[in-house]
Amino acid sequence: MQRLSVNQWTVRSWGVRELTDGCARHGIEAAGLWREPVAEFGLAHSAKLMRDAGIRVSSLCRGGFFGRAGWLDDNRAAIDEAAALGAACLALVVGGLPDNSKRLSAARQHAADAIAQLVPYAEDRGVRLALEPMHPMYCADRGVLSTLSQALDVAAAHPPQTVGVIVDTFHLWWDPEVMAQIGRAGREDRIAGFQVSDFLMPLPADVLLGRAMMGDGVIDFGPLCRAVAAAGYAGDVEVEIFNADVWAADPDAVLTRLKERYLALIANEMDIISNKLSETFR
Amino acid sequence: MQRLSVNQWTVRSWGVRELTDGCARHGIEAAGLWREPVAEFGLAHSAKLMRDAGIRVSSLCRGGFFGRAGWLDDNRAAIDEAAALGAACLALVVGGLPDNSKRLSAARQHAADAIAQLVPYAEDRGVRLALEPMHPMYCADRGVLSTLSQALDVAAAHPPQTVGVIVDTFHLWWDPEVMAQIGRAGREDRIAGFQVSDFLMPLPADVLLGRAMMGDGVIDFGPLCRAVAAAGYAGDVEVEIFNADVWAADPDAVLTRLKERYLALIANEMDIISNKLSETFR
Repeated sequence: MQRLSVNQWTVRSWGVRELTDGCARHGIEAAGLWREPVAEFGLAHSAKLMRDAGIRVSSLCRGGFFGRAGWLDDNRAAIDEAAALGAACLALVVGGLPDNSKRLSAARQHAADAIAQLVPYAEDRGVRLALEPMHPMYCADRGVLSTLSQALDVAAAHPPQTVGVIVDTFHLWWDPEVMAQIGRAGREDRIAGFQVSDFLMPLPADVLLGRAMMGDGVIDFGPLCRAVAAAGYAGDVEVEIFNADVWAADPDAVLTRLKERYLALIANEMDIISNKLSETFR
Repeated sequence: MQRLSVNQWTVRSWGVRELTDGCARHGIEAAGLWREPVAEFGLAHSAKLMRDAGIRVSSLCRGGFFGRAGWLDDNRAAIDEAAALGAACLALVVGGLPDNSKRLSAARQHAADAIAQLVPYAEDRGVRLALEPMHPMYCADRGVLSTLSQALDVAAAHPPQTVGVIVDTFHLWWDPEVMAQIGRAGREDRIAGFQVSDFLMPLPADVLLGRAMMGDGVIDFGPLCRAVAAAGYAGDVEVEIFNADVWAADPDAVLTRLKERYLALIANEMDIISNKLSETFR
């Protein structure tokens, strides 16, 4: 349980205080925060509350959307917020095609350029930017980086402590190269976060809500979890679920279920490898 | 217009006779047929009708679904039908995860094994099997081959005249490697078919109907069409659209619109390259 983190959007009705209290009640030691509820509660208040409660901020969600007007100022603000919260990374959703454009390769180049522009600012503040490759069904409207390989190629131009990637099971499970690329991400010291949720079939009408509780979808978590552990990732494992049923349920019941599934499907798999690794290097 | 083919499912309300008549009315010289309407009209009748009308069968849809019981007999029947129709290829939707299994790599291996099992039968009958890599949102339920690279890797074990691939803009537009892999497919003589349709955003509630008329979605057809032409593909260009609005419209109006869009967005792009190639080799 020590590495389990709950992403705030999983228990979306909770503000920062409810989330902190909920984590304490359930023995969860880390959380991924969202900027909107943090702003609502107050940035300094949020940072103090998390610190006093001893809860690690595994990520701040989210920067990116580099196709939107004002992206530079907005991302600098997000970096400042991540620094204030001591977040392990700032998750970046790089954005889709800009309005009225179909030029995918130009949009990808723009994303790479935008990252490059943010790096010095992030470096100065000690914040790690985390590129999140997204499922190809979101390529047009949310993320023109679709594979871990692409994200690692963009990250390669920058120091690993400032630009990493997020390995998200929902986004990457289908990728024929994902196992090899997780290994590469480990060797290149780029894994800034590991997010888990399942992939629902059939997809709901709004495909943004196609995530599910681990075990309720089609993903075989074992190989992915073992690969991430074998790649040397020792950070928090964040459960991020956008799902109408999960959002409609009692958040405490969601956390109870989430812990069960995490222990059965995720932690066991990762521990096998982590224990082997630590034996090897003892 | 000489290379334009209309896939029967684009004008789904039409049986084989209506399709043949429609192609004649619109000056379309090729069609992709589906097994169900062919069976309804009769295989021999369908073959004779197409032959007499001088309409090429650019593909027969579809074999595959290797996870289903009875797949071997069903695919052999599909091969026989493709042979009787003189189809340029039999399109294979390899299928998703088998019931109650999440073992993706096993499903991929099963697809490769099933292809290998079908090759001698297809070879004997002079039928070309065409692997269709499918958009990753269909990975679990329709196609565990998601990229052109994967499909080419599976095809590599077999002679190119018996196993090829279908390049489908809807399925592949997002793939960061698609341009390079189209080039590879050309060099390895594997392009058995080129299917075009657009990718609708936002996706409809049933993501199977996320295809659209060229120009109505997010795909930039120019680079893809030029790449396919540059790869030396000289076969038919099949327009395959699964879309509730297209299906609800008058099929003749659909074909009129389809020809306009094909000429403006597809043929022009391909002709530029094809003309350059033929000048080079004159």
